[in-house]
Amino acid sequence: MLNIEKIYDASIVLKEAARKTDLILSKTILEGNEIYLKSENLQVTGSFKLRGAYYKISKLTDEQKSKGIIACSAGNHAQGVALAAQKNSIKATIFIPATAPISKVEATRKYGADIKLIDGVYDDAYNAACEFQKETQAEFIHPFNDEDVIAGQGTIGLEILEQLPELDAVIVPIGGGGLIAGIAFAIKQLKPACKVYGVQAQGAGSMYQSFVNKKILELPIVHTFADGTAVKRPGELTFDICMNYVDDIVTVTDDEIASAILTLMERQKLVAEGAGALSVAAAMFNKLPIQGKKTVCIVSGGNIDVNILSRVINRGLLKTGRLSHLTIELLDKPGQLKEVSSIIAEYGANVIRVRHNQGGENTDINDCFLKISMETKNANHFEQIQKALTAKGYRIASNVQ
Amino acid sequence: MLNIEKIYDASIVLKEAARKTDLILSKTILEGNEIYLKSENLQVTGSFKLRGAYYKISKLTDEQKSKGIIACSAGNHAQGVALAAQKNSIKATIFIPATAPISKVEATRKYGADIKLIDGVYDDAYNAACEFQKETQAEFIHPFNDEDVIAGQGTIGLEILEQLPELDAVIVPIGGGGLIAGIAFAIKQLKPACKVYGVQAQGAGSMYQSFVNKKILELPIVHTFADGTAVKRPGELTFDICMNYVDDIVTVTDDEIASAILTLMERQKLVAEGAGALSVAAAMFNKLPIQGKKTVCIVSGGNIDVNILSRVINRGLLKTGRLSHLTIELLDKPGQLKEVSSIIAEYGANVIRVRHNQGGENTDINDCFLKISMETKNANHFEQIQKALTAKGYRIASNVQ
Repeated sequence: MLNIEKIYDASIVLKEAARKTDLILSKTILEGNEIYLKSENLQVTGSFKLRGAYYKISKLTDEQKSKGIIACSAGNHAQGVALAAQKNSIKATIFIPATAPISKVEATRKYGADIKLIDGVYDDAYNAACEFQKETQAEFIHPFNDEDVIAGQGTIGLEILEQLPELDAVIVPIGGGGLIAGIAFAIKQLKPACKVYGVQAQGAGSMYQSFVNKKILELPIVHTFADGTAVKRPGELTFDICMNYVDDIVTVTDDEIASAILTLMERQKLVAEGAGALSVAAAMFNKLPIQGKKTVCIVSGGNIDVNILSRVINRGLLKTGRLSHLTIELLDKPGQLKEVSSIIAEYGANVIRVRHNQGGENTDINDCFLKISMETKNANHFEQIQKALTAKGYRIASNVQ
Repeated sequence: MLNIEKIYDASIVLKEAARKTDLILSKTILEGNEIYLKSENLQVTGSFKLRGAYYKISKLTDEQKSKGIIACSAGNHAQGVALAAQKNSIKATIFIPATAPISKVEATRKYGADIKLIDGVYDDAYNAACEFQKETQAEFIHPFNDEDVIAGQGTIGLEILEQLPELDAVIVPIGGGGLIAGIAFAIKQLKPACKVYGVQAQGAGSMYQSFVNKKILELPIVHTFADGTAVKRPGELTFDICMNYVDDIVTVTDDEIASAILTLMERQKLVAEGAGALSVAAAMFNKLPIQGKKTVCIVSGGNIDVNILSRVINRGLLKTGRLSHLTIELLDKPGQLKEVSSIIAEYGANVIRVRHNQGGENTDINDCFLKISMETKNANHFEQIQKALTAKGYRIASNVQ
């Protein structure tokens, strides 16, 4: 049975492997409110998953340890298990779907794990892992539905209570539910008045649906930008703990998650992955009754591919009018590029790319397009530039690239 | 005179305004070495500058406070002074060159300062600030050449010694020298055996040049991506302290700074600005004799425009072969786009943009270009794809966009 003593025990064991991550006050996430960020993205391996995996492995018997451990994951759990095994000198075999981002595979390999890249999706890797388990009798480390794993994640609850004893509420991202189960259990034992809220991505709301319907439901398909939380079915253990100790669960959209990632980068100088930003998205977009409450958002991880991060930034810049694209129809006569450039310069925008196309299907044969990408101050600034160009007789064909 | 008591005093005063920022161990910045990051990018206002500004303002007399304060800055000093003034209920007037990024201006305005946007460059803003000072007798807060400001920055030295008493070396970014003067003074008083190193951007090495030549030199021009350190002439006070307490000063290139920013994002989940990444760049690129030494890198700030961050990421991705651009000459006949796409797919690259141009000056009238941007695993992966395309008879016109 999970009990608070186990979580205290985990907190002692974890001193040798995990960081006590900083709790950082932000006054800008929700204007007029004190939001504290528990920076598990700054945890060793870049996510909280190390805690549960490390504690679980520390509880194995010597015989179990000698047979090695297995995990199946393309993400943070893989890295947590691999590092925990390395630190305990245990052989780890990690099954990863071959479609996983190369950066995550390499990060896991770096910790000395034996990597099995399996063609297909997660389920194929999982099946291969199960077969391997039967052959080797190695210990399968479940990513969330395990008492010791939950106890490890629960140490975050103890740390928060120590760092901010006067807290009123905690917001926790949910995938399979291991993180929130541990935190909710710890906090409700020690400070029952503190609210514990869960957040899922709208496209992967398996715990949300199960919580609302009061029984475990399996979703036929999950799809979200917060890939670390794409779990079709919550665990039995984690579901039970949520039903007993969690006050409410809400969902956020992928767009809201992307905005939260951008805000964390710009305002807090923290890199968060989609799953890691769920809690901040819920606070920013007023999904929960936390006005005037001292609220802790768990920023659970930061392992986001920089390619994706670059796209999140670009989308955010476009949305807030700080990056603008413009397509202008030009008559094919001299001097126009110069005039357009000087109008843009006059308004203080910074041109970062110009492309010139020699006509398309929908224009006169003599016309050509000028596509300009520029850094603008905001949507209003961009509008002024468009108006100035229109006033000079230019036809704006499109402002979307 | 600066003395260690003043720095202790500053550390008490700063408890009400500044965070004791986390010291984060990184094992990936310099393989096989323990590099600790002092995360002043996570300081309130996003940089260490708050420390010096706040302590300076706390030492003003009531009469001085009643006349208000002035600063001239487009960056972190402006935000530090503005917030410090707000917390002390003092009127602050900040002179900013009109060319400053809108995001920095808005951040400063947010703290309630009166902003004067001055046409021209920094010197014009500075002249306007001096005139205003004569009129109003308000206190001019110098960004670095001031004993109290230096003492405020020196509190970082005290914190590091407390957080890692066994440290062997500290690497500190240098602009005007306020940060390193404070840290070097504190550390050499308390642990003289600890090395203190400074880093400047190659394009703005005024302290470096002065240090090497043992006299204050003024550079005619400074230009660097680490805009927070673009100072033409070090201060008298800061130069003297550097000569007495700093072990060595080195420089890094803009490309090295950009790599350090990308590494901090990817591996440490921390957003750093150019100036903030100087110390990490010096460690990563082996500019200093720190092999085997417990070394602290001061990550001094994180206020980087996300537009610029986006460019740093893209440049880094291109350099490491994780983003690749390809221009292929196509004969204008059907089926080729399909074939090119399937070759790329076969090699597991992810196409993110396709453009199709109807010919250019240097191609036959019947030819056309296909420009493809894709996510690749590394430079080698991209080369394989190019070879496969060439083997099928495609002519690769260029792999640079």
